[in-house]
Amino acid sequence: MSTADEIGTAAQLACLLEASAPKPGNVSPGRHFRDARYEDFLASAAAIGPALARAGERPLGATILAAVEATARWTRSNTNLGIVLLLAPLARAAALGGSGALRTEVAHVLAASTVDDARDAYAAIRLASPGGLGRAGAQDVADAPSVSLVDAMRLAANRDGIAREYATDFSTTFERGAPSLVRARADGLAWDDAVVETYLTLLAAAPDTHVARRAGEPRAAEVTRDARAVLAAGGVRTAAGRDAVAQFDRTLRDPHNLANPGTTADLTAAALFVVLLDGGWHSTHGDSDDRAR
Amino acid sequence: MSTADEIGTAAQLACLLEASAPKPGNVSPGRHFRDARYEDFLASAAAIGPALARAGERPLGATILAAVEATARWTRSNTNLGIVLLLAPLARAAALGGSGALRTEVAHVLAASTVDDARDAYAAIRLASPGGLGRAGAQDVADAPSVSLVDAMRLAANRDGIAREYATDFSTTFERGAPSLVRARADGLAWDDAVVETYLTLLAAAPDTHVARRAGEPRAAEVTRDARAVLAAGGVRTAAGRDAVAQFDRTLRDPHNLANPGTTADLTAAALFVVLLDGGWHSTHGDSDDRAR
Repeated sequence: MSTADEIGTAAQLACLLEASAPKPGNVSPGRHFRDARYEDFLASAAAIGPALARAGERPLGATILAAVEATARWTRSNTNLGIVLLLAPLARAAALGGSGALRTEVAHVLAASTVDDARDAYAAIRLASPGGLGRAGAQDVADAPSVSLVDAMRLAANRDGIAREYATDFSTTFERGAPSLVRARADGLAWDDAVVETYLTLLAAAPDTHVARRAGEPRAAEVTRDARAVLAAGGVRTAAGRDAVAQFDRTLRDPHNLANPGTTADLTAAALFVVLLDGGWHSTHGDSDDRAR
Repeated sequence: MSTADEIGTAAQLACLLEASAPKPGNVSPGRHFRDARYEDFLASAAAIGPALARAGERPLGATILAAVEATARWTRSNTNLGIVLLLAPLARAAALGGSGALRTEVAHVLAASTVDDARDAYAAIRLASPGGLGRAGAQDVADAPSVSLVDAMRLAANRDGIAREYATDFSTTFERGAPSLVRARADGLAWDDAVVETYLTLLAAAPDTHVARRAGEPRAAEVTRDARAVLAAGGVRTAAGRDAVAQFDRTLRDPHNLANPGTTADLTAAALFVVLLDGGWHSTHGDSDDRAR
């Protein structure tokens, strides 16, 4: 898979499968946030397709800005900034990639990023206005950047899970997210369950940086411990695990102790995109028993 | 709204909003068919975007065939043939349209359809293999057409709700579907409820031709009577109505008396596309109370 249209479609489907799975603490069908409903995520997924389909034709920062501008025409919420930041280099790597593995190509795309890419990405972040990547003494998104996009991301890597992917050539996506998803599908889980399991696996592995910024690091650490306990109870694979998943969701939505692991949801979407770009829709899909007539 | 990308995005969002709303007797999140899961509809919606975005650049039949071919790369089910047949002329009208109203432009697009358009549409129908538009003595899709696409559709109009739209310049879409949706949104219904109400309204107005072909005309007439009763009970607007909607859904899914009003779902998607092309996402969205912080 590598035509521009197919890359755009895969990016959209990654967003749609992520948004549609009932991930604890995040939006899914019938479970809305006050400032963002499920249908805002549908519109956002649809909106970014053309920009990501053209990721091979223009610089990384321009793709990020175009995708965020397209999203802003449909929703005022910040529904997908993190996803766009993650998917744009992957889409460019898929578009430019020759015979090399996707991760090798991503490393090339990141290494080639420029100050102009950083400037466009900062503009995108300001447009989506999520409060930036946290306050930074150097290379704050309110200022004009003086370093390349990947260097700016390295400065934020210790406090932001998206920036960390840039700084590590997408280590979480390639080494934890995508393998978890492939394993879950190989075990016969439907896409929604496979997505929830991958999300829990990522959340159990590292505190969500969006939760840490909004609710503090102790709360983020607590959420990670809870995710581990849910997986230990079986996660989506057992009845007891499903009860634990539902309880975890209620805990995260408690207005007095709110925690929205939004960065982990973004990382889940990146893992989905990698799996789809690798042909995982068909290779994990065609023979599963839910397709049998 | 009229750039190519925006037309493609609106077409995708129409499919996504339709698929995501819990319409009785059809697929929605968590409620799958044996041969088509919700995620197949997500993939199908994503797949058709590029083809519909280019509807202004090539003949109507070529757009229909390209959209169905793109869908076939993602799913073996016939998830969206009816939707593609309905959305393609609307997309072309939106792309070519000057200052005229969309329905006037659609009439021009249909009147200009050719035998080549019919040939490509027949190829698309054979590729999606839903059993054709019913057996026909003349202009069966197994044969090479000798009339224009709109003339072929006129021959099928009495037995197929999609063909009837071609034969009437989309009378159901413009005169019943889109107005129902706009009214529901103006009344403050969320998109999912507004979509279900529009679907019930269309089903109550005319027997679903997909049900008639698969389960017989008496069953289709019964389904229409049931839809009227559900609306009379309040539909999505009252607690008693919601109970009736849920009961209706169970009745339609009863394996011993199965009825899948698929054509009505397609007509609902067409109504959504018209409303979105007319700016209805923002005009019915921005001020509703579900968006208030």
